[in-house]
Amino acid sequence: MPERRIFVVRHGERCDFAFSKTGTWNNSFDSRGRYNPQDINLPRNLPKRSDGWQAFLSDTPLTEIGYLQSKLTGRAFRDQNLEIDHVFCSPALRCVQTAIGLLKGMGIEKRINISIDPALYEWMTWTRHSRPSWIPARDLKKLGYPIKDNYVPCMTEKELKLSETLSDYYNRSFAMINKVISECPEGNILIVGHGATLETCTRQLVGADIRSSDDFYYLVQNTPYLACIEAASRNGLWNLVGSPIPPFSHTFNRSFEPIQLMTNDLQSIKNERQERDRQLRTTQ
Amino acid sequence: MPERRIFVVRHGERCDFAFSKTGTWNNSFDSRGRYNPQDINLPRNLPKRSDGWQAFLSDTPLTEIGYLQSKLTGRAFRDQNLEIDHVFCSPALRCVQTAIGLLKGMGIEKRINISIDPALYEWMTWTRHSRPSWIPARDLKKLGYPIKDNYVPCMTEKELKLSETLSDYYNRSFAMINKVISECPEGNILIVGHGATLETCTRQLVGADIRSSDDFYYLVQNTPYLACIEAASRNGLWNLVGSPIPPFSHTFNRSFEPIQLMTNDLQSIKNERQERDRQLRTTQ
Repeated sequence: MPERRIFVVRHGERCDFAFSKTGTWNNSFDSRGRYNPQDINLPRNLPKRSDGWQAFLSDTPLTEIGYLQSKLTGRAFRDQNLEIDHVFCSPALRCVQTAIGLLKGMGIEKRINISIDPALYEWMTWTRHSRPSWIPARDLKKLGYPIKDNYVPCMTEKELKLSETLSDYYNRSFAMINKVISECPEGNILIVGHGATLETCTRQLVGADIRSSDDFYYLVQNTPYLACIEAASRNGLWNLVGSPIPPFSHTFNRSFEPIQLMTNDLQSIKNERQERDRQLRTTQ
Repeated sequence: MPERRIFVVRHGERCDFAFSKTGTWNNSFDSRGRYNPQDINLPRNLPKRSDGWQAFLSDTPLTEIGYLQSKLTGRAFRDQNLEIDHVFCSPALRCVQTAIGLLKGMGIEKRINISIDPALYEWMTWTRHSRPSWIPARDLKKLGYPIKDNYVPCMTEKELKLSETLSDYYNRSFAMINKVISECPEGNILIVGHGATLETCTRQLVGADIRSSDDFYYLVQNTPYLACIEAASRNGLWNLVGSPIPPFSHTFNRSFEPIQLMTNDLQSIKNERQERDRQLRTTQ
């Protein structure tokens, strides 16, 4: 048996990506920021945030399916009798919600608190060189989220470099995982982060070299929601051992247009849809 | 206000379609029919059926996501204060499970029982001229499903014609909806069926002509899971009024391959995947 196990998980389906083609997510806020979800897959309610409703557009929550993905994945952990003793999480709302879904699925949301660490945030290059806005850990706790309030993060939000190279990002992640390991000398660790976190939090830990940016992009593009990788230690040496749980795959579901059933002139609906699809392709 | 409302809903994501490319669903049964799901999205348990485990492969259950789609859609009905008084359902397992998810999401699963009717089964041409095998209503009831046990269906399983033309199918559906309306002189009606049910159970009801097979196929292909159409009556005349609930759309999630993170030779993984994708394309 390994002495220690670390599980790194990507967050679930995010509202902005799920509705990027249709604008349904942005259109669910009126000009005063009042939220009225236009799709059953958008969250029914949003938490209050002191940085204003616009912050949801860059710090996106999970869709309903995303949250359910998280709970089902937590249940898969429980089905495999995988025990979790410590949870560390990126401050991005989608990650915090995923961590809560995982803990709920495992049935341990009342027993374990989540440590929020900016060092687990995604590569700063992807924030387009602007400082991201997150709900502070103390506010998440006030919202009733199970957050550890005396946790001192690896780095503060302001220490994240706006112009961060890929190797900076690998090194930040490596520093984070080393801090976690030294702070938690016993028990299994769950890390909830982004697509790249599976790679960057484990690569140097197992003694391997940082990847080329081509390979890095390939990995990120092929890391679906709720993907999980396990690192295990024996005699103090860490190895990647695969995923501790089965994969999680499902198909997409398009938005339904009831007008197609209500018309006798179906041809004009077909033409309209073809034209819309053509425009989507040419504007992308 | 309309006097009566009928809501027709398609079932949720089905196991066979969701895993048709990978074989994961069929591979979750061993040679003796023991079930061990190979993906988190496959149902954790299957109900017992007296017609043997192979029947699951043609009478497919919902995936986990499919069941969650149903519950969220039921919640959307409740959010719109839509009251349901009668539920009629195709005998296909995916439809029965969808009906239960809808009732649970509406919070009325203890109050309303489901009437199972073979007349709501999909176009017999799609069963490839073999008699489908379903779990009998009395067995569903024994499994704890909320099934109405004194319901006399519009037609028996054996009365379904194996060589059914498209207009036969429209006429069967029209006969079914007329029976439902005359049997339930008051209250709102929920019909749970297949992609085509939205069209075939409403088309002649609103006084329109049966569609060409081209148009019919177009409609079925553009009717996603949990699509819903409402027919409402005023002064005894029925009209289609659109969907009573918002659309439900989400993206897909691929199966994760952890090996990509464990190798230093990522190029061979890339090549393998390309070759697999190429073969999938050429064999389809």
